[in-house]
Amino acid sequence: MNNFEKTGTYQFVTESYLLDFRGRVTIPMIGNYLMHAASNHASKRGFGFSDMTERQTTWVLSRLAIEINRYPVMSEPVTLYTWVDEVGRYFTSRCFELTDSTGASVAFACSIWAVINLQTRRPVPLEVEGLSAYIADRHCPIEKPGKIATIEAESEGTPYQVKYSDLDINGHLNSIKYMEHLLDLFELDLYREKEVKRFEISYLSEGKYGMSLLLHKKETEPDKYTMAICHEGKAICRAMVSWK
Amino acid sequence: MNNFEKTGTYQFVTESYLLDFRGRVTIPMIGNYLMHAASNHASKRGFGFSDMTERQTTWVLSRLAIEINRYPVMSEPVTLYTWVDEVGRYFTSRCFELTDSTGASVAFACSIWAVINLQTRRPVPLEVEGLSAYIADRHCPIEKPGKIATIEAESEGTPYQVKYSDLDINGHLNSIKYMEHLLDLFELDLYREKEVKRFEISYLSEGKYGMSLLLHKKETEPDKYTMAICHEGKAICRAMVSWK
Repeated sequence: MNNFEKTGTYQFVTESYLLDFRGRVTIPMIGNYLMHAASNHASKRGFGFSDMTERQTTWVLSRLAIEINRYPVMSEPVTLYTWVDEVGRYFTSRCFELTDSTGASVAFACSIWAVINLQTRRPVPLEVEGLSAYIADRHCPIEKPGKIATIEAESEGTPYQVKYSDLDINGHLNSIKYMEHLLDLFELDLYREKEVKRFEISYLSEGKYGMSLLLHKKETEPDKYTMAICHEGKAICRAMVSWK
Repeated sequence: MNNFEKTGTYQFVTESYLLDFRGRVTIPMIGNYLMHAASNHASKRGFGFSDMTERQTTWVLSRLAIEINRYPVMSEPVTLYTWVDEVGRYFTSRCFELTDSTGASVAFACSIWAVINLQTRRPVPLEVEGLSAYIADRHCPIEKPGKIATIEAESEGTPYQVKYSDLDINGHLNSIKYMEHLLDLFELDLYREKEVKRFEISYLSEGKYGMSLLLHKKETEPDKYTMAICHEGKAICRAMVSWK
C-alpha cells in the first residue's frame, strides 16, 4: 500500500445553512468534517465505531489542533485528506489537510486518539501492528496538540449545564460541543474583526448529562486565549485559541 | 417534467458522532437533512440562496412539521425525497419523505416558506409562475404545520441568551438551533422512555445575538407539549411536541 492508498479522501460542499454570521465555515463544522473522515477512514480499515464496539472498546479523542489559513465560504467544494501519522502503545495520531478546488491548503489538523474499554472506561493498549500498516509518510506542518496551562483559578467562569443535545452516543458531552461552548465565550465583535488562526483542545474527562460546568477563558498573550471547562473545580478539558 | 423529475432525491448515511445518547438520529439532524435537500433542490431550479441574494431577497422558513415513524440508527443509509407542494402569493410549501434502504417511509415533513427583502426584512410576493412549474403531484400524509396556541403566560420559562454558534449567515438565530434549544427543555428520562412522534414549529420573528430569551413549555394534553420562545414578553417562535 503506498501513501496515496493510505490516505483517505473526502469531498464536501460547505452548506449555506450551517455557516456563521460572516458566511464562513465554523470550527465545529470543520470538526464535524474531521470526525466524518476519521470515522469513515477507520471503518474502511476494520477500526470503525462498530468494529471497536464488537471488541468492547471505543475510540476517544484525546487532543486536537486545527490551524486555518483561509475559511471556506458558501457552497465551496473542499477536499479533506486524512492519514494515520503515528501509532504508539496507548495513543495514535491522525492528521488532516483540507484543500480548496485549486488544491491549495486551507487548513491542517492533528488529532490524538486513545482506545478505552466500554465497561471500565479505562485506556487499553492499541493494536499497534494492525494500525501501523496504515501509517502514511505525509507531512503535517502544524504543531501537534500538547499540554495546556491551568488558568481556571484566574478567571471567574461562565456557568453551563450539560443538556440532551450535548450528548453523544456514549451519553457523554460530544467532542464537537466542547468546541462550540468554548467558542461561544468570545464576543461577536472579535469574530467581526479577527479570525481564529489556531484552535487546540485537550479532553481530560467525560462531561455527563446535567453536570454543572464552569467555562473559563484568559488572554494569556495578546490575541491568545487559554481556556478550560471545569466541573467541581476539576478541568474536564483545556483549550487554546489564537486569533489573527 | 413529470413527478419523478420534479422530486429531488438526496442520499445520506447517518453519522455515528452526531447520534444522540440512544444511538438514534436527532430531530435537529433530520432538520439539517431537510435544509440540505431544500437548499440544493431550490438551487438546481434557479431559486437557491445565491439566486435569491442576487434579487436582494432570501428564503425564510415560516413553519415546519416533522413526523417520525422510526428513528434511523447508526450508519444507516437513508434517502430523502423533496418536492414543491403548493405555491401561493406569499407562501410556498415543500414536503419531504425520508425512506430507509428497504424503501419504507421512516419520516415525513412539511415546510412552509416565505421570501423577504434583504433590506426591509418584509415579505415580498413569490414568483408564482416560476415556482409553480415545479409543483409535484405527490402525497404527504401528515397534517400541515398550523397556528400554535399561546402558553407563555402559564409557564415560568427557562432563560437563554443567543450566542455566536446560534447565528446563521443572516446573523439571526439559526432555524435548527430553535429546535435544539426547545428539545433540550425535556428531561433525559423522557428520551429514555419515549420518542418524539411529531415536532412542529412556527417561526415568528428573528432571534438576534445577545438577546435574552425565555423558553416555555407546557403539557397541554398527555404526552403533548406546547412551547414558545419569548423575548421581552413577545413570542419569537411557537412549537408543539408529541411523544409516544
